[in-house]
Amino acid sequence: MGIGDDAAILHPANIQQLVVSTDTLVSGIHFKAKDSAQSIGHKALAVSFSDMAAMAAKPKWVLLNLTLPKINDKWVKGFTQGFAKLLSQHQAQLIGGDTTQGPLSITVTVMGETDQAVRRDGAKMDDLIVVTGELGSAAFALKNPRKSKACNEQLHSPKPRLDVAEQVKHMATAMIDVSDGLLADLGHICHASQLAAVIELSQIPVNETVKKHPDWMSYVLAGGDDYQLCFTINMDDEDQLPEDCHIIGQIIAGQGVMVLNHHQPIETNFKGYQHFT
Amino acid sequence: MGIGDDAAILHPANIQQLVVSTDTLVSGIHFKAKDSAQSIGHKALAVSFSDMAAMAAKPKWVLLNLTLPKINDKWVKGFTQGFAKLLSQHQAQLIGGDTTQGPLSITVTVMGETDQAVRRDGAKMDDLIVVTGELGSAAFALKNPRKSKACNEQLHSPKPRLDVAEQVKHMATAMIDVSDGLLADLGHICHASQLAAVIELSQIPVNETVKKHPDWMSYVLAGGDDYQLCFTINMDDEDQLPEDCHIIGQIIAGQGVMVLNHHQPIETNFKGYQHFT
Repeated sequence: MGIGDDAAILHPANIQQLVVSTDTLVSGIHFKAKDSAQSIGHKALAVSFSDMAAMAAKPKWVLLNLTLPKINDKWVKGFTQGFAKLLSQHQAQLIGGDTTQGPLSITVTVMGETDQAVRRDGAKMDDLIVVTGELGSAAFALKNPRKSKACNEQLHSPKPRLDVAEQVKHMATAMIDVSDGLLADLGHICHASQLAAVIELSQIPVNETVKKHPDWMSYVLAGGDDYQLCFTINMDDEDQLPEDCHIIGQIIAGQGVMVLNHHQPIETNFKGYQHFT
Repeated sequence: MGIGDDAAILHPANIQQLVVSTDTLVSGIHFKAKDSAQSIGHKALAVSFSDMAAMAAKPKWVLLNLTLPKINDKWVKGFTQGFAKLLSQHQAQLIGGDTTQGPLSITVTVMGETDQAVRRDGAKMDDLIVVTGELGSAAFALKNPRKSKACNEQLHSPKPRLDVAEQVKHMATAMIDVSDGLLADLGHICHASQLAAVIELSQIPVNETVKKHPDWMSYVLAGGDDYQLCFTINMDDEDQLPEDCHIIGQIIAGQGVMVLNHHQPIETNFKGYQHFT
């Protein structure tokens, strides 16, 4: 219910498009019970804010449904701190929710507004493929928790790329956030747009520590949880790309995602990969 | 996320007020694991639709987050049937959600529209107090599962009173749904409106089977889960009340809810009762 009544009342007078996203995070599946409460609070909201970024929407209203095994004041305080900090950073408002007893799980629903939602299905032939930030850091940190502070930060405190989304919303033809891994998520754009992609591995920004690991390719191509953006733009818009945006490939005819490494096709058998045909 | 993209896109062009409500139902707390899947599906949505009724809003868009221990096709089919039937009865639309693995729980978020949301805090001195339907049936059925088919129906398949809400939205000064029990919920209206209430027990509609039970007063005054409406109207509007609406008392100065039985004050010590001062 809403805070102090049966429901919250909003006044979306001048919104052209209202964008709504909801995600449930379950303890033991989406996070570890021993993760810091602050990090869980941050991440529960960051995941949904990242969906808003992927749609080029600005998050405005948030609902929080919290299911807790028992009242643990210290945990709730930490969770609230992580959650509230990110909420206020983006001037979003908590408008309602629910607290129930049960096995630990968190559902966050975010409503945002935009004058131009960017969907997955708008990529065009010859469009350039762009990613933000570095990929593979979160997946690396999950498997190698003591190797890199920057990667740990990416895993436990990902920053939804609302900054870039706002800057590219009028040039992006399709957009998605990298939550399941680059091949899987770029594959979603290709599938929805009924086209294919070719990407150059050596062009993907990767953390130096990750790159030294024997499994680095798997982290970069199939590692989830980075919450960076992957989007497509017309070739003519290349010069207008903001900072921290990196061209990694191009949209072509066909199906699936082909990966080149220094211009040589490589075999990829990672989860989420759709074979190039 | 939305169906087929990172989020759902809505176009609320002509909505004056957008009303949002969310509820989490946890197995073992809000329903029994052995309840029929169809009934759980119905009730998960009915609870949120009832919040819309309490605000005098028409439910339009629904998000469903389902956390399941393991895929059980038969259970999911039953759940979906109960859920979808109520959804289509009210021409509402499922726009997104999430399916995750974990201990059984259900979060339903409903967005509705209204030209005039009715809140809890608008009751005025001398307003009449009105309830719909019969009270206490669901609580009776929970404790006495084999006594009354009508009461079982009220417990397992409650009908959100969107019909009455639509008819009284321009005359109700305050409104709430009876989910926690009449004394508690009418108490919320009184507290929010900074007034008190006096109600006459003999005027409250009660199922005949419930009335024969020694604990009937407790079911009627403190039993939850009926999902009927309780609202207040100006005395001049009495003649315009639609069918199945029953005047049970009046708003007065003070705090709390006083109960009379055939004009004699009675002591009530039920949960949620706020003592009259």
